[in-house]
Amino acid sequence: MRSDSESSQKTRFEAFSDGVFAIAITLLILEIRLPSQETIDRNGGLARALLLLWPSYVGYAISFVTVGIMWANHYNVMRLIVRIDFALIVWNLLLLMAISFTPFPTAVMAEYLPHAGHDRHLAVGFYCLAFSLTAVLYNLFWRHASRDRRLIDPAVGDAVVAEVTRAYWPGIVAYFTAAVLSFISVTLALAIVAGLDVFYMLPRRGAHVGHEEG
Amino acid sequence: MRSDSESSQKTRFEAFSDGVFAIAITLLILEIRLPSQETIDRNGGLARALLLLWPSYVGYAISFVTVGIMWANHYNVMRLIVRIDFALIVWNLLLLMAISFTPFPTAVMAEYLPHAGHDRHLAVGFYCLAFSLTAVLYNLFWRHASRDRRLIDPAVGDAVVAEVTRAYWPGIVAYFTAAVLSFISVTLALAIVAGLDVFYMLPRRGAHVGHEEG
Amino acid sequence: MRSDSESSQKTRFEAFSDGVFAIAITLLILEIRLPSQETIDRNGGLARALLLLWPSYVGYAISFVTVGIMWANHYNVMRLIVRIDFALIVWNLLLLMAISFTPFPTAVMAEYLPHAGHDRHLAVGFYCLAFSLTAVLYNLFWRHASRDRRLIDPAVGDAVVAEVTRAYWPGIVAYFTAAVLSFISVTLALAIVAGLDVFYMLPRRGAHVGHEEG
Amino acid sequence: MRSDSESSQKTRFEAFSDGVFAIAITLLILEIRLPSQETIDRNGGLARALLLLWPSYVGYAISFVTVGIMWANHYNVMRLIVRIDFALIVWNLLLLMAISFTPFPTAVMAEYLPHAGHDRHLAVGFYCLAFSLTAVLYNLFWRHASRDRRLIDPAVGDAVVAEVTRAYWPGIVAYFTAAVLSFISVTLALAIVAGLDVFYMLPRRGAHVGHEEG
Repeated sequence: MRSDSESSQKTRFEAFSDGVFAIAITLLILEIRLPSQETIDRNGGLARALLLLWPSYVGYAISFVTVGIMWANHYNVMRLIVRIDFALIVWNLLLLMAISFTPFPTAVMAEYLPHAGHDRHLAVGFYCLAFSLTAVLYNLFWRHASRDRRLIDPAVGDAVVAEVTRAYWPGIVAYFTAAVLSFISVTLALAIVAGLDVFYMLPRRGAHVGHEEG
Repeated sequence: MRSDSESSQKTRFEAFSDGVFAIAITLLILEIRLPSQETIDRNGGLARALLLLWPSYVGYAISFVTVGIMWANHYNVMRLIVRIDFALIVWNLLLLMAISFTPFPTAVMAEYLPHAGHDRHLAVGFYCLAFSLTAVLYNLFWRHASRDRRLIDPAVGDAVVAEVTRAYWPGIVAYFTAAVLSFISVTLALAIVAGLDVFYMLPRRGAHVGHEEG
Repeated sequence: MRSDSESSQKTRFEAFSDGVFAIAITLLILEIRLPSQETIDRNGGLARALLLLWPSYVGYAISFVTVGIMWANHYNVMRLIVRIDFALIVWNLLLLMAISFTPFPTAVMAEYLPHAGHDRHLAVGFYCLAFSLTAVLYNLFWRHASRDRRLIDPAVGDAVVAEVTRAYWPGIVAYFTAAVLSFISVTLALAIVAGLDVFYMLPRRGAHVGHEEG
Repeated sequence: MRSDSESSQKTRFEAFSDGVFAIAITLLILEIRLPSQETIDRNGGLARALLLLWPSYVGYAISFVTVGIMWANHYNVMRLIVRIDFALIVWNLLLLMAISFTPFPTAVMAEYLPHAGHDRHLAVGFYCLAFSLTAVLYNLFWRHASRDRRLIDPAVGDAVVAEVTRAYWPGIVAYFTAAVLSFISVTLALAIVAGLDVFYMLPRRGAHVGHEEG
């Protein structure tokens, strides 16, 4: 009965989180908007207008995959967690607040990427910084759950827990590096963020697969 | 079988509620909008435009955490409830109607907070009043469920039920107080709402932890 | 095992439907938009602007409660259904298409309700017609499920099935009546729709409570 | 216990997917927007304005049913899949990225359908191409799951797996054909997409019903 009740708690905690992830990821499409018909006619027709939206497509793809990987990460981590306490609900809420924020920096980045001048660097830096914040909050979420193994399933080995803890650092470092580098080269900064997405999506032994063995 | 069917009812009731909470909380980001590029150029560039959006960030953060805590509250209360009747569905619907309304007063507050003049006070008062209404509806939702313990799990002690009932008053009083004080000082009013958020998020013995023991 | 698999099918069918209901109901808030600050300043300040939005609040409240009751209805009917076939998925999809459409007629109604002239009647008629269509699709959904009791739980009595079938007619008739009457009096038409909401929300013996006994 | 854990993984994978489908399908309504009141007054009143939105209604209906059928397909296919691996999560994410994109080509198509000139063909071609991409990603998703039956439920016959594999080709071919034909006749292209919807919705022996027998 205890166990039933704990599993039902976890179910609803996950359902709410899944909802926020699913909505944040789907709202990204609302940031892609066709210019008004007059603007299009003035600029050479629909084909050109659709092509000129390339920064929006780039932002949509990178943000969608990044948030999607963060969901997969949440899903993997929750498989190691057996109990929810109130502080985990609070850390989760702060994490979801960062996830839900994603459409705004994505829109800012997409609007300023094709510009010349300083604002272009600032927009990409803002975008990378938002992901850095999310990565830090993920780390804090996990730290709360894993400290002294307080919320961890007893069946999960210590090595798996240590591996997850280690696996967070590369992401945080990479996003902060991208944020700093965006002031030198926006292409390099976006390549780091996109490269991280590709890296996490590639089939491999390691963090994610490790969880599956857990 | 009875019990199975009751548990399946509760699951769907919670799933619908989780969906509305998750969407209302995620739609908040749509209220943060970058001014048009022309406006930005006229006002000194992107960095300044992003900083000038501070009331939107404040509104996003306060509303996100407040709705998130209301979700956590719903989640805690539902753990004490064992049966759903039609009237609870109706009270829940009215409660969700108030929760879903949140993005609108948040947008109004964020737009008028930086203004001088009377409208600034009115906007913050409207914002606090919306939360007051939500708190009152929560109270009515709980009153229906707990009167004569009609929907309460028999395993939950009377002391827990009484404690939850008592725990609603401070919130209602605080939100109404904030609504009234907003006509004297918007800073004070928002500090009360944000302070309430911090108070509810701090680890402590009391209402929320009490539910977990239930 | 059969039964497990059938119950898991039903779970996902309901989860998708709950998602669409929850989103359609929450998107209603996006239709309430504050006029631009210039317009507000020209028209006498924020208080007046918030009051002038009354048709949007009316539309929000009526549509929210109507869609919410339709969700409660879906929830009640699904408790009588034990099996999902492909045609039920199709009827459900058409029903959800009508539910998701709701924010558009709500916005049209809210914009034209304060106008003088013929368009005001047309907007309210369009609004009522949208609900009529939804009610008709509900009826077709239920007819598919209940004909020869093909998808009905064997434990549910014939009287309950007959009662649900009968309970659909008043809604359809009332919405069509409201649509026609809107060309005579928009107040009368909206009073019928709102009255239907209140009627369905009142505690009573009958259709909804009947399902609970089923 | 293994089996419990696997079933719980699958539950959350499906819940996230259901969320994205449900949101993408419901956001379609946001693309239907009434022109400003001034524009309406200039063009002969509300009735005419509502009629002139016919391409938006067509886009809404076709996209809603197409995404809905894709959900039904996901639901059917997942009933054959017993295990989730990391690569399936990645393929699913890419598939959901294409599904979530739908509101944008729908808006483009609806805006340009009533135009004369080349852009009308381009808009419909873009719309059909988006569905082609989704169909291709579905195929890749299924190929990963079904190759050597690695994620398939052992209780599912080889004939069912082969049938599902075959059933993907007509959709891909039809959508690409529609994309190409849109440059000759937009009516023909849209008739193919809508005809495919009707075909999939008709009651029949075959792919979908086959899954149910599985």
